[in-house]
Amino acid sequence: MRVHELETPAVLIDLDVMERNLARMAEYCRRHGLALRPHTKTHKIPELAHRQMASGASGITVAKLGEAEVMIQAGLTDVLIAYPIVGREKAARLAALAERASLTVALDSEEAVRDISRSAQERGVRLGLLVELDIGFRRCGVQRPDEAVALARLIHDLPNVDFRGVMFYPGHFMAPEPERRQLLEDANTRLRRFYDAFERAGLSIGVVSGGSTPTAFISHEFLGVTEIRPGMYIFNDRTMVGLGVARPEDCALSILVTVVSTSVSGRAIVDGGSKTFSTDRYRAGDGRGFGLVCEDPEAEVEALSEEHGHLDISRSSRRYRVGERLRIIPNHVCTVMNLHDEVYGIRGDQVEAVWRVAARGRVR
Amino acid sequence: MRVHELETPAVLIDLDVMERNLARMAEYCRRHGLALRPHTKTHKIPELAHRQMASGASGITVAKLGEAEVMIQAGLTDVLIAYPIVGREKAARLAALAERASLTVALDSEEAVRDISRSAQERGVRLGLLVELDIGFRRCGVQRPDEAVALARLIHDLPNVDFRGVMFYPGHFMAPEPERRQLLEDANTRLRRFYDAFERAGLSIGVVSGGSTPTAFISHEFLGVTEIRPGMYIFNDRTMVGLGVARPEDCALSILVTVVSTSVSGRAIVDGGSKTFSTDRYRAGDGRGFGLVCEDPEAEVEALSEEHGHLDISRSSRRYRVGERLRIIPNHVCTVMNLHDEVYGIRGDQVEAVWRVAARGRVR
Repeated sequence: MRVHELETPAVLIDLDVMERNLARMAEYCRRHGLALRPHTKTHKIPELAHRQMASGASGITVAKLGEAEVMIQAGLTDVLIAYPIVGREKAARLAALAERASLTVALDSEEAVRDISRSAQERGVRLGLLVELDIGFRRCGVQRPDEAVALARLIHDLPNVDFRGVMFYPGHFMAPEPERRQLLEDANTRLRRFYDAFERAGLSIGVVSGGSTPTAFISHEFLGVTEIRPGMYIFNDRTMVGLGVARPEDCALSILVTVVSTSVSGRAIVDGGSKTFSTDRYRAGDGRGFGLVCEDPEAEVEALSEEHGHLDISRSSRRYRVGERLRIIPNHVCTVMNLHDEVYGIRGDQVEAVWRVAARGRVR
Repeated sequence: MRVHELETPAVLIDLDVMERNLARMAEYCRRHGLALRPHTKTHKIPELAHRQMASGASGITVAKLGEAEVMIQAGLTDVLIAYPIVGREKAARLAALAERASLTVALDSEEAVRDISRSAQERGVRLGLLVELDIGFRRCGVQRPDEAVALARLIHDLPNVDFRGVMFYPGHFMAPEPERRQLLEDANTRLRRFYDAFERAGLSIGVVSGGSTPTAFISHEFLGVTEIRPGMYIFNDRTMVGLGVARPEDCALSILVTVVSTSVSGRAIVDGGSKTFSTDRYRAGDGRGFGLVCEDPEAEVEALSEEHGHLDISRSSRRYRVGERLRIIPNHVCTVMNLHDEVYGIRGDQVEAVWRVAARGRVR
C-alpha cells in the first residue's frame, strides 16, 4: 500500500527517522555506561518495544498495569512500572504479572508497599521496588531523605519485596535551556542529600532511574544515574523541537489530513481535530498552536474542534484547495498515539507496517 | 456489581441525572415544535442513541462516516452527518451506507457535492444534502448568500442528490450570557440574508438545522430553525456549568479516581490524567483547571500529566489519603468519552449497565 491510498486522518511513522532516533539514544547510553529503559507509553506498541530491545535497551518502562499486561503478553520480560500501584485489586494484578516477568514498581507511600508485599506473599512471587524521590517537579516522590530511608527500610522488613534503588522524574525540565542548567544544579543538591542519608543508614542503592526525553542527553550530568527512561525520543514532536531537544527532521510522527473546507477567508479546515491531535498545548516558545504544517511553515494550527483542525492561513502565500492532503507534526506524540487504534510505518511513499496500538487506553 | 468494586479510573454515568437531561430537552423541543436530532459524538454509544430516539428524537447526528457506520450497524436509521465528506473514498463509503439508512450530509464546497453525486449515481442511491452556512463561528460554512444559492442550484442540477435545506453551527456561542445576546442578533441578521436569497432564487428550504448544547434552550429564537443538534446535554460538564447552561446536579458524567500519592505538601495525585480527562480547557470563568472534585469544591485539578491528575489542595481543609476514591466532573465530556473503551451506567451505588463506547476513535 502507498501513503496516498490511506484514508485520513492517519498517523504516519517515518521509519528512517525513527531508526535514526533509536540508534542515537542507544549510542549515547553506551558511551556513558547508562542502561536504557525506554518508556513505551509514547508508542504503546509491543513491536516497537521489541525494536527498542533489539537496539540496546535493557528493559522497558510503562505507567499502568494495563500497559504492563499488554507488553508482557507480547513477550517483553523486564518491565518497570514507573507509577505507584495503589489498592488491593491492583496489587493482586501486579503479583499475577510477576509470575511471568521481572517486574519493578516505583512508589512513594507506605500504603503501596504494604499492599504489594501482601499480594506478592499470597501469590508466592517477589517484586522489586524503587523509592520515588521528588527532585523538584512536585508531583510524586518522597520529599525528605529521612522519609526515603524509612520507606526503604519498610521494604527491607516486609516479605516478598526487594529494595532495588530509587527513581526520579525530572518533569519540570520542560523549560528553556538556560533554566535547565539551574534545575540540574538543584536536582543534584537534592540527590546528594538523599544518597548521603541512604549511605548513613547502610542501605545500598542498586538502581538510580532517571530520564525523560528533554533531559536525555544530559543524563550523565545527573548525580549517580544508572539508567534512563526517555519515551518521546523514538518519534519526537513539535514541543521537543521548540525546546531545542530535536530538529524538525528528527520528527518521525506526522498526521496525514485532508482539507475539507476553505469557505472562510484566511482559514483552511482539515479533517483532524482534538480527537486526532489531542488538545495538549505547545510547551515551548509562545505556547501557541497545535501543530506544524510540513507543507507550509506560515500556516498556524490555530484551534481544534473535535473533528476540525482550524488552520490560520492568513499570513501564508500558499493556495489551499478542498481535497488536498497535508502532513502535520503534533505538539505531543504520546497523547496522539493514545487516540488511535492503528498507525502506519512508512518509508518514502511506501507503507511498510500497520501497527495496532495495543496498549492504547490501558489506563488501569 | 457495585461502584466501589470498579477499578479506577472509571467513567460513571448517573442514570437518574441522564434521564432527567433527556426528558428536559425532549420537552423543550416538543413545546417549540422543533425536531430533536442529538449529536451522538458526545456519547458514541448506540444504546444511548436508541434511548434518545425513544425519548423523542427524530434521528441522530454524527460527525464522521466511521461514527455513522457504527450507528447504522446498530439499527439507527435516520442519520445526519454534520461534516463535509470530501474525497472519492469517503463518498463511496457514504453511498454504500445510504443503501441501509436515510442519510443526509452537510457541506460547503462544490468538490464535496460533485464527489457525493458521482458515488451516489454509481451505487444507485439518493443522498440528502444540506448547505452549511457560517453564522459567525468562522469554521465551515459558506459566507455569502449568492454562494449558498449557487451550491443549492448545483445540488439541484446533479443526479442522485437532493437539496434538503441548510445547516449552521453556533460554536462561537461558547461565551458568557450577555455576549450570547449580541451573537444571536448577528446570527439572525445573517440567516435573514441567506433566507431572502434562497427565496429570490425560488429555492425552498425544507430543513434548517441548528443547535449545540449552549444554545439549545434558546433555539426557538434563531430565525427559521426546524431542528436542533445538541450533544452534551445528555451528560453536561464543568464547562456547561461555568456557562450557566447547566447546574452541577445536571452533570451525569463523572470520573472515579484513586488518590495514589500525597507525598508533596499541598498536593494530592490521582490515577487519572490527560489520557483519562483529555486536556480540553475549561471554556468559562477564569479558564483554569481540569475538573470539579465532587467531594471537595476547594480542591483544584491544577494540571494533568498523562496518568497523573495533580490536585492543588493547599486551600482545602480536607484530609487526603492514599487509596481513597474521588469523583471528578471533567471540563468536556465528549473528548472524555473518546478516551475510554467502556463506561458504567450507575444508579446510586449500583452499576446497572456497562456500555462499550462503540464509536470511540472513529475519526475517518
